[in-house]
Amino acid sequence: MTAPPRVLVTGATGFVGRQVLAPLLGRGFEVHAVSSRGEPREGGQVAWHHADLLEPTAAPTLVEAVAPTHLLHLAWYAEPGKYWRSAENLRWVEASLALLRAFAEFGAPPRRVVVAGTSAEYAWSQRTHCVEGETPLEPATLYGTSKHALHLVAERFAAEAGLSLAWGRIFFAYGPGESPSRLAGSVARALVRGEPAKTTHGEQVRDFLHTADLADAFATLLASDVEGPVNMASGEPVRVRDLVEALARAAGRPDLVRLGARHASADEPAELTADGRRLHKEVGWGPKLGLVDGAAQTIAWWAADQPG
Amino acid sequence: MTAPPRVLVTGATGFVGRQVLAPLLGRGFEVHAVSSRGEPREGGQVAWHHADLLEPTAAPTLVEAVAPTHLLHLAWYAEPGKYWRSAENLRWVEASLALLRAFAEFGAPPRRVVVAGTSAEYAWSQRTHCVEGETPLEPATLYGTSKHALHLVAERFAAEAGLSLAWGRIFFAYGPGESPSRLAGSVARALVRGEPAKTTHGEQVRDFLHTADLADAFATLLASDVEGPVNMASGEPVRVRDLVEALARAAGRPDLVRLGARHASADEPAELTADGRRLHKEVGWGPKLGLVDGAAQTIAWWAADQPG
Repeated sequence: MTAPPRVLVTGATGFVGRQVLAPLLGRGFEVHAVSSRGEPREGGQVAWHHADLLEPTAAPTLVEAVAPTHLLHLAWYAEPGKYWRSAENLRWVEASLALLRAFAEFGAPPRRVVVAGTSAEYAWSQRTHCVEGETPLEPATLYGTSKHALHLVAERFAAEAGLSLAWGRIFFAYGPGESPSRLAGSVARALVRGEPAKTTHGEQVRDFLHTADLADAFATLLASDVEGPVNMASGEPVRVRDLVEALARAAGRPDLVRLGARHASADEPAELTADGRRLHKEVGWGPKLGLVDGAAQTIAWWAADQPG
Repeated sequence: MTAPPRVLVTGATGFVGRQVLAPLLGRGFEVHAVSSRGEPREGGQVAWHHADLLEPTAAPTLVEAVAPTHLLHLAWYAEPGKYWRSAENLRWVEASLALLRAFAEFGAPPRRVVVAGTSAEYAWSQRTHCVEGETPLEPATLYGTSKHALHLVAERFAAEAGLSLAWGRIFFAYGPGESPSRLAGSVARALVRGEPAKTTHGEQVRDFLHTADLADAFATLLASDVEGPVNMASGEPVRVRDLVEALARAAGRPDLVRLGARHASADEPAELTADGRRLHKEVGWGPKLGLVDGAAQTIAWWAADQPG
């Protein structure tokens, strides 16, 4: 018998990270989870590590101690409304490069790494269908630029250092624990409170994934040997109003939906969708929940956990 | 009377940095020079600071203490033969981002910064004439990729943080103190030793600048308000053999030149030249030395300082 693969997961208490531990365990990984929030947890099958990766000595200390064969790097600054323009993006580029250097130095073979990228790396026009390796990478924000710059260096460094690297670009994630300052979080919270769910016209077309699906896709990508950029997407474009109405049906309150009650920003793309073929055909992953079950899970979480 | 502008210069003992202090003083800057090498120097008009910018606390400590109005960031890993592929490039991206964050936080108005970029950021084909904003940026090496990625983040961060930023791309620098593992250093050393100066065929076309010219160009760029990428180049392409023969004439030993004695790499571009119009017209700088005087200064340095 060989030892199981050992994965170090950063951002493990985050919006996506909290959902990824179970699918990693399910694929036979020995799971080491990192979080800077609070005390280390007693984690059953998961080994928790308390570390702030923004501290310069954190990454080498942690990676040397764990000696992981796999690295899933999800951590980043994600404060809603602020993360697009914050200097924290530079700190996370710095921390991510230090983490990659530590993994090259202290990781164990096969040294496989997956990093969370973003749809904001692509050049957005009014209508953009994002295809890996084809759609230009011209991010319009400091957040997108920082992720793009990290990807450029990470890919080249991986080739020099003998790491196997995939870069999973997240599109529009929704699910349990989402901030109420974001679309699905705001709508779900209003619906379970019995308040009007105010949104824009909702005609914008996007690629949505429930975080449980997204996390499962990350676990599948990590366990594969696919390298390079991969859109972490359903490949099935829907309108924002489709998601809103799915949430409303799940809550049994379609009467509360107020499409058009909020002003849509003029520079918001009409269509921003993702080619999902690399994920579906090369990685071999497809969504399990879809919009109906995903909406139901989201509503259930808000109903159960958010007594306000 | 207003206080003079105060510049912090990194890499101040390097191949270019050692030449930049005089032209900065000549332009009225109060000059603070940083070096990680050895003890702080007694510097006459220059205030020397001993700091290793790869140490995480170095940048904020130093920038807060100096409170510079201008930053000239030349420091990088530059070990000949190794810098193209080394993980040290990642450390310098990290250190450079930390330095920019510190400058945004502790610098004084107008917070003007110039960073040394490289011709290796451009996509090199067999014949490339590099034009800022036109020639594709597709670096083929970890060094070029790291500089390019830093530039992307630095430009966006400068816009968010209110820094005025120019990015000076260095092409082919030669001059006093060059490593004998590089072209002009190797040729000059051989010539002053009376040994054969073995080179490739020398038909490659390049843009050469003597480091005194290059440093003067950086000082001029820093004192200007030109932003964005600027080729730090003569704009006058010459053949490698033209430089070799200029050095040989300066040394009085054209008989020692052995063009073709070394094998030229197959992937070495035949022509790699620079559009110099931004530097010459917008910044208003042109070479003072040129090839003949530049070669003479280089030979004089090797003859005087290198008794071997």
